[in-house]
Amino acid sequence: MSSKCIGVDIGGTTVKSGLFETDGQLLDKWEVTTRKEENGKYILVDVAASIREKLNEKGILLSDVAGVGMGIPGPVMPDGNVEVCVNLGWRNVNPAKTLSELLDGVSVASGNDANVAALGEMWQGGGKGYSDIVAITLGTGVGGGIVLNQKIVAGKHGLGGEVGHIHIREDETDHCNCGGVGCLEQIASATGIAKEARRKMAACDTPSLMRKFGDAVTAKDVLDAAKEGDALALEVMEVVCKYLGMALGQIAFTVDPEVFVIGGGVSRAGKFLTDMIEKYYQFYTPLSMNKAGIALAKLGNDAGIYGAARLVLG
Amino acid sequence: MSSKCIGVDIGGTTVKSGLFETDGQLLDKWEVTTRKEENGKYILVDVAASIREKLNEKGILLSDVAGVGMGIPGPVMPDGNVEVCVNLGWRNVNPAKTLSELLDGVSVASGNDANVAALGEMWQGGGKGYSDIVAITLGTGVGGGIVLNQKIVAGKHGLGGEVGHIHIREDETDHCNCGGVGCLEQIASATGIAKEARRKMAACDTPSLMRKFGDAVTAKDVLDAAKEGDALALEVMEVVCKYLGMALGQIAFTVDPEVFVIGGGVSRAGKFLTDMIEKYYQFYTPLSMNKAGIALAKLGNDAGIYGAARLVLG
Repeated sequence: MSSKCIGVDIGGTTVKSGLFETDGQLLDKWEVTTRKEENGKYILVDVAASIREKLNEKGILLSDVAGVGMGIPGPVMPDGNVEVCVNLGWRNVNPAKTLSELLDGVSVASGNDANVAALGEMWQGGGKGYSDIVAITLGTGVGGGIVLNQKIVAGKHGLGGEVGHIHIREDETDHCNCGGVGCLEQIASATGIAKEARRKMAACDTPSLMRKFGDAVTAKDVLDAAKEGDALALEVMEVVCKYLGMALGQIAFTVDPEVFVIGGGVSRAGKFLTDMIEKYYQFYTPLSMNKAGIALAKLGNDAGIYGAARLVLG
Repeated sequence: MSSKCIGVDIGGTTVKSGLFETDGQLLDKWEVTTRKEENGKYILVDVAASIREKLNEKGILLSDVAGVGMGIPGPVMPDGNVEVCVNLGWRNVNPAKTLSELLDGVSVASGNDANVAALGEMWQGGGKGYSDIVAITLGTGVGGGIVLNQKIVAGKHGLGGEVGHIHIREDETDHCNCGGVGCLEQIASATGIAKEARRKMAACDTPSLMRKFGDAVTAKDVLDAAKEGDALALEVMEVVCKYLGMALGQIAFTVDPEVFVIGGGVSRAGKFLTDMIEKYYQFYTPLSMNKAGIALAKLGNDAGIYGAARLVLG
């Protein structure tokens, strides 16, 4: 097998790409703007051109590339078909097939971006050294990806790892974007944490470091205040981590991975966050002490290109 | 490959075995008593003797058997080691290795009994024709087994499919056997359904068909009354099915199988039960209409021998 592979992470604003050794070393990375006009018909053309340009610059032949992997922000069928990808304007396309044609038939693999990022964390990130991981990304929303035996569990309907929409909170009253009430995403995303903070501030007069931000309070403000021992911010994070710990327990008793890898903007709070999640995770899983641990993601926004490149290796 | 395989389901009271064609046809089945004395040292000796006897009776040579599969009531490591199996008295044994030695080196595979039963339902039962199923058994407890790509997901610590101990019910106050509070098993097992019925009867004076059974009410009594339209029994089943539907939703957004297969004594209530579960399952998973369906298990107590035989086929 050739010793280089390329990972492409297609986002709604930019396409990130990386050139890798097949042993996981990142040699170079670059970005192009995602041209969404005319139902995104230029996106893959631009990707192909940027790959050719980068290979030229490095003096690498296309035939020296083992393959290209691609993460796509929507559901991808096992044969690479994408029925609809609202973020890109795609409908009934097979981006892997198209990109392969644009690159003289080089082998191209594709997958959902959250799942692909999980694979990246398994390969070279917080799950390095493990083969069974569940990655949970706490960002604007809550995403997830499940990797068992070093393979993505995409699910039979593209719902594998959609843990952000697990129903978890019985006393929620607002609706989630998905139509549900009480999804994990509603409490454990950055948006959810900020909302819970606003609720707690409105419901009492307790002084808090969070009050200076008013309704503009962010998840980072809450976590910073909690780290300084602010009682109200700690209350918010106890609620957040209770539901995260509960969700991890449910997942542990379903697929039983080696490790949970927590990523996304919220995870910048580091060990403070994972320790608090761990407390509730243990509480909700007394059945066994011998179960998955909790680790932090390590690759940040590069998880997607790492995972996409890893897709090539099968 | 030879055309016969044997499935052995080791229980705390009896060992059930079945002789199969490798295409799934059950040719014969038989039982022996589980001799648990002296830390269960005779169990596999008896199993081996009963297999030899059956093969003699049928005029089949051991060399014509592709292999023997075995379901064990406890956690089984990937290498076949069993650290402890309380129901049988076993400690630090490798039953697959031992049985193979007792049967002139014939290939022997083993797995946890709940997982093996799920594999059986995939092969010839309620999940026939599918390759990704989650089986949930509603009996004295709640067991589960996950099969993806026709392989059991045993988990890295033997906790794969342990869905009975998912924390699901926030307003539960009693403890589960596992030490948790609010496990799925506490509300959705036969025991749990009966308990919920006793609670509901104690909390009101509403007349009910269940009242004639008093504290001896069983899950079957509850389901029979609910089917006749008994208001209080229906209330009990709505609670039970709410939590089952919620759990199925959580699992669907984790491994996204093709179908859930509901088995165990409680599932004898049939479509009445699965329709009620389906109602809540849909309610808790508005994200997508295109997801796993719900079916009834078909093999009853034979699921274990079917799944054990299927283990042999890899």
